[in-house]
Amino acid sequence: MTFNIKNDRNLTMLVDFYELTMANGYLDNEVGNKTVYFDMFFRRIPDGGGYCIMSGVEQMIEYITNLKFFEEDIEYLRAQNMFSEEFLDYLKNFKFSCDIWAVPEGTPVFPGEPLVIVKGPAIQAQFIETMILLTINHQTLIATKASRICTAAKDKPVIELGSRRAQGYDGAIYGARAAIIGGCTATACTLSAEVFNIPAVGTMAHSWVQLYDTEYDAFKAWAKTYPENCILLVDTYNVLKSGIPNAIKVFNEVLKPLNIRPKGVRIDSGDITYLSKKVRKMLDDAGYEDVKITISNSLDEYIIKSVLDNGAKIDSFGVGERLITARSEPVFGGVYKLVAVENEGKIIPKIKISENAEKITNPGFKQVYRIFDKNSHKAIADLIALGDEIVDENKSLTIFNPVYTWKRKKLHRFYVKPLLSPIFVKGELVYENPSTLEIRDYCKEQLATLWPEVRRLENPHTYYVDLSKKLWNLKESMLTEFADTLDNEE
Amino acid sequence: MTFNIKNDRNLTMLVDFYELTMANGYLDNEVGNKTVYFDMFFRRIPDGGGYCIMSGVEQMIEYITNLKFFEEDIEYLRAQNMFSEEFLDYLKNFKFSCDIWAVPEGTPVFPGEPLVIVKGPAIQAQFIETMILLTINHQTLIATKASRICTAAKDKPVIELGSRRAQGYDGAIYGARAAIIGGCTATACTLSAEVFNIPAVGTMAHSWVQLYDTEYDAFKAWAKTYPENCILLVDTYNVLKSGIPNAIKVFNEVLKPLNIRPKGVRIDSGDITYLSKKVRKMLDDAGYEDVKITISNSLDEYIIKSVLDNGAKIDSFGVGERLITARSEPVFGGVYKLVAVENEGKIIPKIKISENAEKITNPGFKQVYRIFDKNSHKAIADLIALGDEIVDENKSLTIFNPVYTWKRKKLHRFYVKPLLSPIFVKGELVYENPSTLEIRDYCKEQLATLWPEVRRLENPHTYYVDLSKKLWNLKESMLTEFADTLDNEE
Repeated sequence: MTFNIKNDRNLTMLVDFYELTMANGYLDNEVGNKTVYFDMFFRRIPDGGGYCIMSGVEQMIEYITNLKFFEEDIEYLRAQNMFSEEFLDYLKNFKFSCDIWAVPEGTPVFPGEPLVIVKGPAIQAQFIETMILLTINHQTLIATKASRICTAAKDKPVIELGSRRAQGYDGAIYGARAAIIGGCTATACTLSAEVFNIPAVGTMAHSWVQLYDTEYDAFKAWAKTYPENCILLVDTYNVLKSGIPNAIKVFNEVLKPLNIRPKGVRIDSGDITYLSKKVRKMLDDAGYEDVKITISNSLDEYIIKSVLDNGAKIDSFGVGERLITARSEPVFGGVYKLVAVENEGKIIPKIKISENAEKITNPGFKQVYRIFDKNSHKAIADLIALGDEIVDENKSLTIFNPVYTWKRKKLHRFYVKPLLSPIFVKGELVYENPSTLEIRDYCKEQLATLWPEVRRLENPHTYYVDLSKKLWNLKESMLTEFADTLDNEE
Repeated sequence: MTFNIKNDRNLTMLVDFYELTMANGYLDNEVGNKTVYFDMFFRRIPDGGGYCIMSGVEQMIEYITNLKFFEEDIEYLRAQNMFSEEFLDYLKNFKFSCDIWAVPEGTPVFPGEPLVIVKGPAIQAQFIETMILLTINHQTLIATKASRICTAAKDKPVIELGSRRAQGYDGAIYGARAAIIGGCTATACTLSAEVFNIPAVGTMAHSWVQLYDTEYDAFKAWAKTYPENCILLVDTYNVLKSGIPNAIKVFNEVLKPLNIRPKGVRIDSGDITYLSKKVRKMLDDAGYEDVKITISNSLDEYIIKSVLDNGAKIDSFGVGERLITARSEPVFGGVYKLVAVENEGKIIPKIKISENAEKITNPGFKQVYRIFDKNSHKAIADLIALGDEIVDENKSLTIFNPVYTWKRKKLHRFYVKPLLSPIFVKGELVYENPSTLEIRDYCKEQLATLWPEVRRLENPHTYYVDLSKKLWNLKESMLTEFADTLDNEE
């Protein structure tokens, strides 16, 4: 669906410089072609939420399929005086050959579980770190924020309109895409709407009203041009004294004779709860009970929840800067860690130690299984297992908390679904991207498998992400071994 | 300096849909070619700071010079069933013809003053709103944050390394550029370094260390590949028990025989103040007094100030997610407001009223003058004046607070510099972009003209931004007239 004319940027060089120094170093030390395994995962859900929404796989694929070093890139790197000619040749003839697995976009995901796994030659798997993180971190951040905002708005439509305050062009373009995945109904970002085939919306700004001598003249001109799509912005001067009276006058004078119902009014400032109630009454009294009220004033999930709790009369929400930048928590802290190395065909698990227990990685090549209850079809827990483990749905399964191991639960009537799907096999793309709207529908379905307690905005129940017994044993033994080493050194 | 291969994306359609519905409406109502004036300005400095750093003019120019609607864009718009064929024809043959003035990049700027002024046909001046805001808001946000971080770091180098946590690709690419403008010395973003000709830096990640059987082996391999650029990451396992002892061992074994001094060590986790003091002592005791310590653990201006205040032994800072997303306040709230309309060659000022006094706009076509003291060459105040006013440097000038008008100051020995430079004249580019490093130098010079009280991180002195008497009178009379109108309607 993407137009080449807009997307033929080559982002191969959008890479942290250290990926290049390391890749060159791997080659120099003859470990460049060693097969390694990296996990991309995150440790904490933003805003104290109960889940995140995976997003960005399509753009990760686009980046990888377009990997190519141009002559000027090679020249640039040569001029840095740090890279061997062998390495520069490798880049010039770069051919991607990794395996990649990823959790499909729109899936609710949780801390600690791999969202992307890369297996391949160290030199390549290392190189793609920056762009995998950048892509998945950004879109997952925004899809998650959008999901929270849509949860707060209940069933009322939420429209994304933050482009002007986004952090750069792609912040707007892919941010709008991620917002749709998270549940928004439409975007004001025309380019995103065009490229990703999502609904575009927009009416007028204050400048339209100001350009005319009076607000009445401005509204009348609009109604004449857009009789079928007449949404008037009523807060340029004064909502109750000027905006709504002028809007009703124009609805009566221009649209009524045409037998066309006006669509709505938009309020972009002031006390939303108070104004929306007054406006609703004024519209109703004038016979415009069906005319919708849209609000768009620095909204986020907290304000939306609060105004709805206070009985505001709102039909839809336009959400800008606080969604497109995830203002309350604008960083998604996904990381990319080495978890295994192959040696003579055998997978040697690796672990990253930290004094901060939650920063210790899960070693080895893995798969994540989502466990569903056979009766309710609700998701009970996710189980991170080693790649060669098989979960037998016909036997009972005991899951346990990886820290407080005495907290355990025996499951009987359940079925499991693996979360990670193959995306690339030996460098060949084997995955077909769904459309953005299909992903939004999938996300909605998947969210419905979570208990409401996991989905609520504040103090949600912590969803269980457990390790298989085999993985837990492996991790414990590696930690013990490491502690022994340090003791010996003291 | 930009490579076409990476930048030939056409962003014409990156526009809020309402700019298109308005533009179409202007044409339909025969006001599309009316000459209008828009100001881009901001109302509040992020993080309670004393100034912002203007950034993004080069990319604003790039966007405007590349404005072009392709056949598929026209088709897409036609399919929305909202636009007239006359309007679609206008877009197909779009020829930019506005005048644009802007404050040069790297200039310290303050709330309320126009950073960009657009004069031209309503249909065009309206259309470019989204991209002017998006471009200037993003880069000014990051340049301002970078300036704060560099202020906290005093004269120690600050390196930008946030790509993986940026909000989208351009968040990384142009964010790195803006970080340099704000004072950073280098970036890890290779693409930005290549395109904007700024220094690229980077060494190793934890994965390098993990890939080897031991930390010692990993360090040794690195030192052999990069003897001249040997910076070792020492916190994969344990900084004091393992990382530093192994680093010193490798420095002694590999570099000493080559007569090469190691460059440094990097610490990416743990208690920075404590660790850096211990590490400094260990390095010094081993004869490596010249080896630098770099820190890179979720830093921002507050943490940098705190660790330096506590005597941490740090030579340079690597700053990631908190800079590239301006995490503490990730939205720069620049706005774009209609300030005048021409009628039969006469400029008719326009004003946007708001119950929130600080949201009321300054009407008319304007210029901003920075007033410097003739002795100290320090900036005393900025004066926003109407476009036809001339400030006579040979007479005394009385400036006054636009709210508390009794607060006034008579200036004698001063000179003024207009802040806004012409960028486009009737659609023709008349401005030459300086290089990114030139802008950084200019920014440093200009910052030096501000009193330290304005530059400090917390509770800075508010820099004076005053209105000329003529502009103040105009605004007052328009507000009074508006209040009278509302009274009559009651």
